[in-house]
Amino acid sequence: MTPIASTFVAGPDGVWRIEVVEPVTGASLPAAPRLSVLAGHVVQPASALWAVRGSTGHQRYTRRDEAAALRAVQAGLDRPAATWASLIPIQKSAAWWELAQDERRAIFEETSHHIGASLRFLPAIARRLYHGRELGEPFDFLTWFEYAPEHAAAFDELLAVLRASEEWLFVTREVHVRLARQ
Amino acid sequence: MTPIASTFVAGPDGVWRIEVVEPVTGASLPAAPRLSVLAGHVVQPASALWAVRGSTGHQRYTRRDEAAALRAVQAGLDRPAATWASLIPIQKSAAWWELAQDERRAIFEETSHHIGASLRFLPAIARRLYHGRELGEPFDFLTWFEYAPEHAAAFDELLAVLRASEEWLFVTREVHVRLARQ
Repeated sequence: MTPIASTFVAGPDGVWRIEVVEPVTGASLPAAPRLSVLAGHVVQPASALWAVRGSTGHQRYTRRDEAAALRAVQAGLDRPAATWASLIPIQKSAAWWELAQDERRAIFEETSHHIGASLRFLPAIARRLYHGRELGEPFDFLTWFEYAPEHAAAFDELLAVLRASEEWLFVTREVHVRLARQ
Repeated sequence: MTPIASTFVAGPDGVWRIEVVEPVTGASLPAAPRLSVLAGHVVQPASALWAVRGSTGHQRYTRRDEAAALRAVQAGLDRPAATWASLIPIQKSAAWWELAQDERRAIFEETSHHIGASLRFLPAIARRLYHGRELGEPFDFLTWFEYAPEHAAAFDELLAVLRASEEWLFVTREVHVRLARQ
């Protein structure tokens, strides 16, 4: 479980076509034709319109029983049928980061059911969470989702459930980059 | 509480004189005359013998009541009398990082009393914890301690308490860099 470091580069190249960049909360990111996912934390190429970076890491809130439940149903990335994807960069407020661990856990799961509510969307929706805050990045989290086009409605429902949660009251910036593999 | 990014550079320069580099567990770091603490994550200068990087961040295990207890007694860095310091880079095992949050919390505090046992050494010992794992650094944690010379015995007792804990069974590499401000 060594952390995976990635840089998401929007510009002229990349296997992912950017369908739309939707501003959800706060400042958006510039529109761009394509997205590439590069290994490591790399400097933004001269041809790029923007680049965001993150690292995977250990799970911050998940209990052993929840981790086992997730592992039993979740799917990996790069499934041939999962030709649609989303990159959702998120920033949370200073108030969130000043909460203690038990307070953040209570909002994350006991109140907002982030894990529990997400479970019924697995394995249709595959996910990978990257952390950016301690890298000095503008976004605290980058979540990468992959799914088959027939699960698009389920994916949008998952987003609606999360965005209606108490946890999302702490989200100060959110951008939704919808993608298709081509 | 924006994360503080620092690079600790060992070489010919710096306000801290390196008294000794003690290998505790695993590979040590090379001996060097002085240490400087630079803002940001910077590339190792040509004159340096080694450099390690970290970022502060939100507290991973501390409950609200524990955070309040710590805040009530802890001291800040840069006290004029605190002319002795230690930089302790630590790496934990893959087994640690694969544990769920509740399992890590239980070892950290319920079994090892990391917070509770440290409290009685405050405010004599001031500390700052940096995270390095998701930066791609060789050390998962860098802890920086500052104290007055008359508290040296208390500091060594704090280290002995932590190193005797169950949590420390997961430490695969630890180096102790003892420093004096000059």
